[in-house]
Amino acid sequence: MEYRKIKDEDKDGTSVTDDIESLGGKPLSANIAASERSRWMRKTTVTFALTLLTSSQAILIVWSKRAGKYEYSVTTANFMVETLKCALSLLALVRIWRNEGVTEDTRLSTTFDEVSVYPIPAALYLVKNLLQYYIFAYVDAPGYQILKNLNIISTGVLYRIILKKKLSEIQWAAFVLLCAGCTTAQLNSNSDHVLQTPFQGWIMAIVMALLSGFAGVYTEAIMKKRPSRNINVQNFWLYVFGMVFNAVAILIQDFDAVMNKGFFHGYSFITVLMILNHALSGIAVSMVMKYADNIVKVYSTSVAMLLTAVVSVFLFGFHLSLAFFLGSTVVSVSVYLHSVGKLQW
Amino acid sequence: MEYRKIKDEDKDGTSVTDDIESLGGKPLSANIAASERSRWMRKTTVTFALTLLTSSQAILIVWSKRAGKYEYSVTTANFMVETLKCALSLLALVRIWRNEGVTEDTRLSTTFDEVSVYPIPAALYLVKNLLQYYIFAYVDAPGYQILKNLNIISTGVLYRIILKKKLSEIQWAAFVLLCAGCTTAQLNSNSDHVLQTPFQGWIMAIVMALLSGFAGVYTEAIMKKRPSRNINVQNFWLYVFGMVFNAVAILIQDFDAVMNKGFFHGYSFITVLMILNHALSGIAVSMVMKYADNIVKVYSTSVAMLLTAVVSVFLFGFHLSLAFFLGSTVVSVSVYLHSVGKLQW
Repeated sequence: MEYRKIKDEDKDGTSVTDDIESLGGKPLSANIAASERSRWMRKTTVTFALTLLTSSQAILIVWSKRAGKYEYSVTTANFMVETLKCALSLLALVRIWRNEGVTEDTRLSTTFDEVSVYPIPAALYLVKNLLQYYIFAYVDAPGYQILKNLNIISTGVLYRIILKKKLSEIQWAAFVLLCAGCTTAQLNSNSDHVLQTPFQGWIMAIVMALLSGFAGVYTEAIMKKRPSRNINVQNFWLYVFGMVFNAVAILIQDFDAVMNKGFFHGYSFITVLMILNHALSGIAVSMVMKYADNIVKVYSTSVAMLLTAVVSVFLFGFHLSLAFFLGSTVVSVSVYLHSVGKLQW
Repeated sequence: MEYRKIKDEDKDGTSVTDDIESLGGKPLSANIAASERSRWMRKTTVTFALTLLTSSQAILIVWSKRAGKYEYSVTTANFMVETLKCALSLLALVRIWRNEGVTEDTRLSTTFDEVSVYPIPAALYLVKNLLQYYIFAYVDAPGYQILKNLNIISTGVLYRIILKKKLSEIQWAAFVLLCAGCTTAQLNSNSDHVLQTPFQGWIMAIVMALLSGFAGVYTEAIMKKRPSRNINVQNFWLYVFGMVFNAVAILIQDFDAVMNKGFFHGYSFITVLMILNHALSGIAVSMVMKYADNIVKVYSTSVAMLLTAVVSVFLFGFHLSLAFFLGSTVVSVSVYLHSVGKLQW
């Protein structure tokens, strides 16, 4: 019904009349144009929200590290993030029910067919997070940050294969540049160590990139499968399974710590801020998946990484390296080529 | 007459019939196609020649440095390079005169109008080379190598402004990437020093990049002004003025050394090899200017820089850095985008 290919939505999004207040008397084409414009606005808004939330997320992490080592269990914090997202989705739904009543698209009850796919992204992320502990046997933390850029390529490839959406040749070139640019921006004097990563380390990094890319692409497929379905219902079910799988992670990794020191041990004001931020960016990711796509998400988080570094200069007195400038230039050209590639092909 | 925009020459160069042996009986269009094909072949050949000669040039420099410091006067070597190029052009001309006789396009005698522009590139290079000694007051040698990549941008800008040739938007993006990629490939742990370059250093680096770009663009204008004019005549006059200006450089910089130790002091087998290589790559540059353009030259020398590094791994046991891989990736994408940009626009 409401669903159309995102790629098509954009084309006229900018060339539309500014007058969207008096739609009633307009012919059908103006209505369509206005609705495309509002879709474009929504897509842009969620993309900006995701970029800003992701940047502030990284800054909060730096801040919390400066304040000392993590004292809390990361798994309990992840569980709290899922719980908060679930609660927020439910709150939004209650508001909709009050204003518009319960419809086929906003009711919470579901069928097995609809809900059966929702655990898959959460399960993939759980496996990926567990693997994360083992990869450090082969790679150090800065090396892992570098290898994580493989996510960009895996997302592009799986987006093409699974969602069967085409990128133009220029957009593929832009995607390779995005990966190279992000990695360049993160280079430091020790980065060359990553080239000595043993074979097992590379395999694990590639498997993790594929798991992460697959989870992202699968989430997009879920969110777009039934476009008219209210996003808060979809989020609610997605996050319920997130809670379940994070509960499993607590049992596997932090059972003793939680039993001995309590669920909320080591929580501080900054921990609460981080949980709030992660919850909001999680919801922003869902919205980008529904109203835009994985490619927009990858660009958004990459630009956020650069923004974080620039903001850190002012906040923490970090120095920007020449590699950062070069990487940022390449990422900027990539963003430009991605949009030019879309218009031309 | 023979002259057409290089941009147009390419388009059908690859889609032409393979049968170029029996041209006589073919209609005119086949003749044109065959002549375009031969132009494309010539352009490709000179580009490859320049790339290979430039790579081996850098390898000879590394080799000569390994063998010890320069014992000879660089200015006398440069003079010998110009003399050799002049002699080679004359030799080629004599062969042409014997085979085809002297024509309007192959005769050596010239008018003031034709020859008056030939000293300008040599003069520009002289000023640039003299400035080179002063910039080291502000930048160290590796920093200077990094700043030299500004040549890429200045060549592109001057090519557009002076020769009035258009690059597509994608080709401009590719050019920015070429500059960023080459710089990334050269990054090392001390590269960040270049960011502390004082204002005067930046100004000098920009002025030198403009001089170098202007000399290149001016040479192209000279070579293409009269397309039917034999390239060896054009080279002869270009190199005669090269000899004159390098003689001036000997007087300014190495007069005492030459007077006391002799003109050829410190020359070794490798010095002779380097002079031979520089002469041949100089002629290749002229040919690229006549049959291709400055953009091709910049791409050619950039790819040569990457080839040199790869070959040095085998020859001298150098290690390739992660930055090198990233930079090479960006340069490769840039080469791809440059050709795609040309076809599409």
